[in-house]
Formats: sequence, C-alpha cells, structure tokens
Amino acid sequence: MVSAIAWKNKKVVMLDQSRLPAEVRFIECADYRLVAEGIKKLWIRGAPAIGIAAAMGIALGAKEIKAAGFDEFMERLEPICSAMLSTRPTAVNIKWAVDRLKKTLLAHREKSVAKLKKMLVDEAKRILDEDIAVNRAIGKFGAELIRDGDTVLTHCNAGALATGGYGTATAPMLFARDQGKRIRVFADETRPVLQGARLTTWELAQEGIPVTLITDNSAGALMRRGEIDLVIVGTDRTVRNGDVANKIGTYTVAVLAREHSIPFYIAAPLSSIDLSIPTGDQIPIEERDPSEVTCIYGRVRTEDNVCSWGSVQIAPEGISVKNMAFDVTPHRYITGIITEKGIFRPGDIKNIMKKPEKGTRGGAFVPPVRR
Amino acid sequence: MVSAIAWKNKKVVMLDQSRLPAEVRFIECADYRLVAEGIKKLWIRGAPAIGIAAAMGIALGAKEIKAAGFDEFMERLEPICSAMLSTRPTAVNIKWAVDRLKKTLLAHREKSVAKLKKMLVDEAKRILDEDIAVNRAIGKFGAELIRDGDTVLTHCNAGALATGGYGTATAPMLFARDQGKRIRVFADETRPVLQGARLTTWELAQEGIPVTLITDNSAGALMRRGEIDLVIVGTDRTVRNGDVANKIGTYTVAVLAREHSIPFYIAAPLSSIDLSIPTGDQIPIEERDPSEVTCIYGRVRTEDNVCSWGSVQIAPEGISVKNMAFDVTPHRYITGIITEKGIFRPGDIKNIMKKPEKGTRGGAFVPPVRR
Repeated sequence: MVSAIAWKNKKVVMLDQSRLPAEVRFIECADYRLVAEGIKKLWIRGAPAIGIAAAMGIALGAKEIKAAGFDEFMERLEPICSAMLSTRPTAVNIKWAVDRLKKTLLAHREKSVAKLKKMLVDEAKRILDEDIAVNRAIGKFGAELIRDGDTVLTHCNAGALATGGYGTATAPMLFARDQGKRIRVFADETRPVLQGARLTTWELAQEGIPVTLITDNSAGALMRRGEIDLVIVGTDRTVRNGDVANKIGTYTVAVLAREHSIPFYIAAPLSSIDLSIPTGDQIPIEERDPSEVTCIYGRVRTEDNVCSWGSVQIAPEGISVKNMAFDVTPHRYITGIITEKGIFRPGDIKNIMKKPEKGTRGGAFVPPVRR
Repeated sequence: MVSAIAWKNKKVVMLDQSRLPAEVRFIECADYRLVAEGIKKLWIRGAPAIGIAAAMGIALGAKEIKAAGFDEFMERLEPICSAMLSTRPTAVNIKWAVDRLKKTLLAHREKSVAKLKKMLVDEAKRILDEDIAVNRAIGKFGAELIRDGDTVLTHCNAGALATGGYGTATAPMLFARDQGKRIRVFADETRPVLQGARLTTWELAQEGIPVTLITDNSAGALMRRGEIDLVIVGTDRTVRNGDVANKIGTYTVAVLAREHSIPFYIAAPLSSIDLSIPTGDQIPIEERDPSEVTCIYGRVRTEDNVCSWGSVQIAPEGISVKNMAFDVTPHRYITGIITEKGIFRPGDIKNIMKKPEKGTRGGAFVPPVRR
C-alpha cells in the first residue's frame, strides 16, 4: 500500500512528495527537526498526513528529553511542539495533533518520564491508525457506488499520499478493485500545482489501478462522449448546508457532471466537516502567488541535455494573474457525501453528528444500485 | 499593432512565437527555405498566418528563379511550392495559398517572368491584406457585443499572432477598446500547449488591453462570482448545423457560460466555416502526443540558476495519457457566430453563403443591446 508516512525502527519515515513523480525518495528522520523540515518543505502534504507527521515528530523529539518529572518533561516538550506548529501556521491538523498529545500526557501526569515518552509514540501511531480506519470506512461505503467496468474521474489528490493510507477520494477505488470490480480512473492534472499529474497518477499506478492522465480541459469532452461514469473528489471543507470547498476546478467538474447527468460524489472525513459555517459563501478563498501559475517546477531537461531540478516560465514576466487555490461547489451539484459514517445527501450533512433516531440511519443512505 | 508576419524590404519577417513570451525575436528571411523552416518549427502558427507565410515564402523563392518563359518558370516554382506544402502536411491554408498563387499565374501566362515574379509578391501581400480586412470586419461586428466596463473571457489564442493581424476572437476586443470602451480580459492558459498563457496574454499586453491570466480551472469560479460578462473564442471548424470545433476546453467554457447565463460567442472567418459537414459529430478529433501533457517546454531556470531552453517533466514516466487536441461545442451552447458578414445565430450559419433576400440580412442579426 502507498504510504506517505510511517513509524519504523524508532524513526519517522516519509516519502518526499516534492520530487514525485520523477524521483521516489524516502527520508528517514531520526531527529524531530528533520520531520519539521519535511512538513515545511512539502515533502509531506495533505491535512491528515501532516497531522500524523507532526504527532510522530513530537514523539520522536520527546525520546531525547532528559527530565526528572512530569512538569520538567512538559516544559522541555514545548519547543518541540512549537517547531511543529511553526512549519505551516494555518494547518489545523498540526494544532489538533499537538493538543491531542498534550491532553493525553496531562491525563497521565503520575506516570514516569519513560512511560510518558512511550505514550507519545503510541498516541502518534494511534492517530495514524485512526486515519487509516476512517479512510477504510469511506472506502467501504464509497465502493458501493462503483460498478464493475466503471470509469471514475477524480480531481487533485485526495489519495493515500495526503493521508495515513488509502486516501479519501481514492479509498472507494481501492475497495472496488479489491472487490474484483474492473475499474478505470481518469485523473485531472489539476493546474496550477498539478497534484493530479504528479501524485494521483503515481499512486494509482503503484496500486495497479489503470489510470489515464488528462488535462483539466478534457473532462467535459470525455463526459460528452460518455466515457466517465462517476466523479469522486475530496474536500478541504464541507459546511452546514452541504456546500463544499475543494481545489480550484472542482466546481467546473461538478457543473459538467450535472450537465451530463453523471453522479458527483465528495469523499469527506468528519474532520473536514465544519458545521459552524452555514453556507459555502462564508468560506474564505485563499489566493496564492502568481508564480504557481506562471512557472512550473519539476525535473528539467535542457536543450543541451542537462538534467536538473528547476522551473519553466510559461507566461510573460510580470503579467497579471488571478490564482484562487479553492472554489466552492454548491450543494445542489452534489449527489452524495461519503463519510466514515455512511453516505449523506448534502442536505442531511447537518445531522451527521446527531445520534440517529432508533431504527434510522441518521440521514445516511444506502445508494440505489446504478445501472 | 502586433504582427506575426510581414513583407519588409523584399524579405519575409516573422516573429518567432516558439520562444514567446520569454523572448521576443523577429526572424528576417531572405531565403524561402528559412520561411519553410519557420512554419515547420512553429515560429509561426495559426491557420491564416501560415497560409500567408507560405504565400510570401513562395514569392520570395520565385525571385531567385532564372527562367526563359512561363513554362520554365512554373517548373522551377514547383520545388518551392512543395517545400511549403511539406512543412505541415495537414494545414489546409498552405494548400489554399499555393493553389491561389498558381491560379493567378496561370491566368497571366502571357506576362514576362519579371512580371510574374512581381505578381506573386503582390498576391502574397494581398492575401495578408484580405486576412486583415476579414478580421477588421469581425472586429467591427463583434465590438457591438462588448459594453463599456465588460470583462471578456477567451480561451486559447485566436489573436493577431494566429492571423495577419487583429486576430479573430481578439479583433472585437481591439475595436471595443478603440471605441473608448474600458474592457478587461481573462485569458485561460489553455493546457496542454498553453497558447493562452504564452501568446494571448502577451499580445493583449502589447496592445495595452488589461489582461489577467487564469488556469483553465478558474473560469467556473469566476463566472459564479459574476466576474465574466461574455466569452469570445475562435474556431478551427464551424459546420452546417452551427456546431463548432475548437481547442480542447472550449466545450467546458461553453457549458459553464450557459450555466451562468453568460453569452458565448464564436469568432469565425468564412474560411473556417465548412458547410459540407452536417454536424459536429462528423468532425474528426485529432489525438496528439502524450508528451504535450507530461512535459512542459519553455525557458528553464535550474536550481543552480542555469538559464536555458528545455522542458520540465510533470507526470510519471510512461503514464497513460489521453490528449485530444480539440473538442466540439454543440450549437445549443452558442449565442452567436461572429463572421465578416455579420453575426449569425448558429442555426442560420447554413445560409451564410446564400445571397440575402432583398431587404433582409440573410440570417445575420444586429445583437440586442445587453444590459
């Protein structure tokens, strides 16, 4: 199984995604500072994956702490936590992981320092295992949506590389494959940062799932030809009314899917569902640096046949660029939201945290068999 | 005015578009073989532009011919014509230009060789002038569709660089600007070959029209925010029922435009209208090399700060790719087709070659003022 992050032989091992797909390089981190560097330099990316990495980094750093008791241990842990938090200041999952580890320690202040250190390692591994369990549940529910012979379109990378394993949007594909269904996947390249071209194609090929790369411009023409049966994408944030923020271009795919009567599904772990926001209009949309659009980074081959890493300039110097990182897909374009608690219609997602009434599934539904 | 090709001081001057926008280089051709090389190496591209280049190349080559009379002249012209025809074997406009020049000569077989040579130069210049006149007419009609303050979206490059001047899709923008309307343009980058990022942004910036580059993924989100007032794109082929083939991604833009009730116009010179084909389903769609998608060519800067020309690899080696060069936009998505004979509803394009009945405009309409 493709794995972006693991705890192996008392070390944190991460796959350097910044050099994929040209180079497959695993980095063994014996020092928490290297883990922090990896998060900062995007060797590892994807909200769940960097939460796991931060937790493992803290557990790794804690091993070196010399402390006489709980209070001293906590004091010496603080700079390690800060190092993780400062890598990507807006990453909610890092903060969440730090808080969770601290809470675990505080609940066991009577334990020895050696025990506390071991608890951190166990808790970090548990965060990884829980993420995998969530994705497996999404995979199990989502696989019901995929028929033998189906072709799935996905956008960006909500795959194993962004998570502890399986991915969110990719988990249903892996489960469908394991059920013996013959499936094919079209991966949108996903400009500007090309996570589809660089990562999704790579990880699905690793899993032996037939995957074909297309430009974002091609999805419409393929749908019109009847070559796509369903769409599954991930999400950065799903809000109360079922609107969904995801990588720029997701909205376009959703409009195209509806135009061609193709089901459009969102794979959304509970951790990405934010019921405090009423509608998609309240989700702030980050605008990013123009250079993401005007320069493309990767392994370069020059005309004199020099191979190196670098970037290629594709637009005039200083040209005006609008580079929105995300867009919002209104709930009316979404067929269903696949979560670890089942598949929900967008209008029912607001009930996902309620305890289902007796005899009901709390809004989750078993999708009808598609023909 | 941005000009891709000109006849200057008895030479053919072309702008090397293969190095735009990183480098602005004009190439003076004193030998027809250099013109042929330029067509082959994509220094010049765009159907009308390469027709003009071929005609000028033949006129240039003819100057060197030593012949006693008409027949010998024609015989010695043949290899020059062949050189042009072999540059891009499927380019209809080169064949058209060769046929037109030969026809002109055949109608004047009594003339001296010196006169024949001069006729070729005049005819090549006339082909350029006629193309400019066509585009000016498209510009005049199309400008009526653009209001003061409008923001226009375009896809790919149907600009001055693809023609003798003004372009087709860009001509209405230039005329609107000249009418004193304050307009803005969003240019889709247009993967895979990035004609929008490389060429459209460059030429509109040269003309002083405010242009903003976006990824193809961004058009939907901008339309949803109300930031686009109308769409104008070019066409490779418009057929009898008003269906239109154009650069891949055009269909997606058309679907998005209809979803947001935004007018979607095609700029189509008569030369691109093919009434012999009944519907878009009969238009063959060329599939091109995967490397167009997996490698991006341009001016490269390596991590060791070496600047050179080269390409960057953005997808796994050997990955499956589907690279359709064009898509078909069915007529029901098209608000109007702007031609040098006026603006037509797609359903009326079949009448464009008929002589209008007395007192009618033969299907062409004056578009209502938009508010």
